[in-house]
Amino acid sequence: MLIRDLGEFGVIDLLNRMVVEGRVIRDGLPCPGVKLLVDTGDDAAAWNADGATELFTTDTVVEEIHFTRDTTPWQDLGWKSLASNISDIAAMGGLPTHALVTLGLPPDTAIADLEDLYRGMLEICNQFGVSIVGGDMVRSPVVFVTVALSGVTGNTPLLRSTARPGDVVVVTGELGSSAGGLKLMLEGLEASGEAAEHLKNAHRRPVPDVAAGQVLAESGVATAMDVSDGLCDDLGKLCRASGVAAEIEAILVPVHPLLREVFPGECVGMALNGGEDYKLLFTVPPAQLNEVNQRLPQPGVAVGRITAGEPGRVAVLDRSGAEVSSGRQGWDHFAS
Amino acid sequence: MLIRDLGEFGVIDLLNRMVVEGRVIRDGLPCPGVKLLVDTGDDAAAWNADGATELFTTDTVVEEIHFTRDTTPWQDLGWKSLASNISDIAAMGGLPTHALVTLGLPPDTAIADLEDLYRGMLEICNQFGVSIVGGDMVRSPVVFVTVALSGVTGNTPLLRSTARPGDVVVVTGELGSSAGGLKLMLEGLEASGEAAEHLKNAHRRPVPDVAAGQVLAESGVATAMDVSDGLCDDLGKLCRASGVAAEIEAILVPVHPLLREVFPGECVGMALNGGEDYKLLFTVPPAQLNEVNQRLPQPGVAVGRITAGEPGRVAVLDRSGAEVSSGRQGWDHFAS
Repeated sequence: MLIRDLGEFGVIDLLNRMVVEGRVIRDGLPCPGVKLLVDTGDDAAAWNADGATELFTTDTVVEEIHFTRDTTPWQDLGWKSLASNISDIAAMGGLPTHALVTLGLPPDTAIADLEDLYRGMLEICNQFGVSIVGGDMVRSPVVFVTVALSGVTGNTPLLRSTARPGDVVVVTGELGSSAGGLKLMLEGLEASGEAAEHLKNAHRRPVPDVAAGQVLAESGVATAMDVSDGLCDDLGKLCRASGVAAEIEAILVPVHPLLREVFPGECVGMALNGGEDYKLLFTVPPAQLNEVNQRLPQPGVAVGRITAGEPGRVAVLDRSGAEVSSGRQGWDHFAS
Repeated sequence: MLIRDLGEFGVIDLLNRMVVEGRVIRDGLPCPGVKLLVDTGDDAAAWNADGATELFTTDTVVEEIHFTRDTTPWQDLGWKSLASNISDIAAMGGLPTHALVTLGLPPDTAIADLEDLYRGMLEICNQFGVSIVGGDMVRSPVVFVTVALSGVTGNTPLLRSTARPGDVVVVTGELGSSAGGLKLMLEGLEASGEAAEHLKNAHRRPVPDVAAGQVLAESGVATAMDVSDGLCDDLGKLCRASGVAAEIEAILVPVHPLLREVFPGECVGMALNGGEDYKLLFTVPPAQLNEVNQRLPQPGVAVGRITAGEPGRVAVLDRSGAEVSSGRQGWDHFAS
């Protein structure tokens, strides 16, 4: 059997099982003196060392798979390759700290492009207090950028596996603008200057919601992840990890007015299934939402609820409550 | 200008400078509350968080650049991709703890091969108390494996930048066998069963010297790195980081008898310039060596001395003290 037959999620499940079942435990701990708090399968791993909770995540982008040089200039590639990782730390309620950057590069890469890449990385690092402290550079037929990022938190890490039926599903900001920006660029569409700038910027310079993650963790919220592959897809992963299902009311999903202006018919679909917005998705008992919203920098928007249905199933409902689509709409990187 | 014009080390220097100079410092620290102890440019980064010293390193192997499937079966690739990282933590005097594994894979990769890869990773992880706690998987035209590895130490990290003229240069074990094993396989050469097994095993299953690193750090040794790209090359990097030069006496470099048996004329060259042996290289004032050697699992072998010559220059001397070669013999991954 090949990877493309089993599919990305099948392969990830298989490898996660191998890793957890194949691990030798000594004195009740996998590493001497270190308590593993969050194992493989969440936005980031977490462990306790001398009181602090350390967070650890990694994310890779590959040319022609995740980006093209046309739609993502080098400086933006630098920004985005850190943004996706910072967002994973935000989704645990943590502060990002140190990054290692691995570059796969063809030998004919221009030094000026590489400098632009690092300018973009440094911009977002300085905005979020992250230090690049090392990495690796290898020759490769295609450009790839892998970032490994550490973080810290003084709170209990936010998990994917703790959603309960009855919880309300909440997002911390508008969705779909990144997908709109990509479509605008790929298809060379017309838009007002203001709308074009908003959409392209949403795609090229997404801002991770670190402040919201902090507030969630401090407010005792248990369940969160970041929206990187699309709301339906990511909520499906969260539901699967929690053994629950979810319903989303399409009309409630927040969309930026400029996205609606340019894509009136498609904006809701983009908000449901477009990726790379890097807002947070969390679930809480309804009674708790008001208090959390008063503390968030921007109040979260309730878009649906957790149910006791088939684990991992996400139903999208229209105004009348009828189901208009279901299941993962997200991206299998290995699909043909 | 292109990467291949500036060369791997020129590019790394440029990017390291950008990273350090472009970093915004607030309240004297790059990250709030965290003291960066070892910045980019050593075997691993190190910082202090709540008393413990955290270590952080990453290393990547790319198919056809660093390995081929002929000479490195999947299970050995798994072992080696962790070994090089564990060796970097060993070179800081630390214990490795948690790993993130990023796989770049063509869609036609067989699941059985992937399982073998993970079996090899789990073997070495369990031997050294490392837990794989996450990662990423992306589609790629060539196989690549990136590991990011954390570690801890209670001692001052061993650095590349603290060698002083007069120090003796010491290695913790025999060198060259990995290069010999590779040559044996690539050229389909004849060798006795015992020798062939030793050499292939040295290439396919190198064992990082974590115990030696621990002893060095506990014994107050300041300067060490691991030998991954070849003794002359790595010693050149250490010398450059310390602003010193070095002399190696070729006759002193330890070579396994089975490597000498198969490659009598080439074994010293392999020990000087072959990579992937993952022994440690350290420097100490001569008066300190005896005491350190009594504590090491296997006594280190003095192979030369640090001098006040041109920074980064490594001279290899023959029996008569005449220089037989100089400068880096190592590998520029981007050279044509």
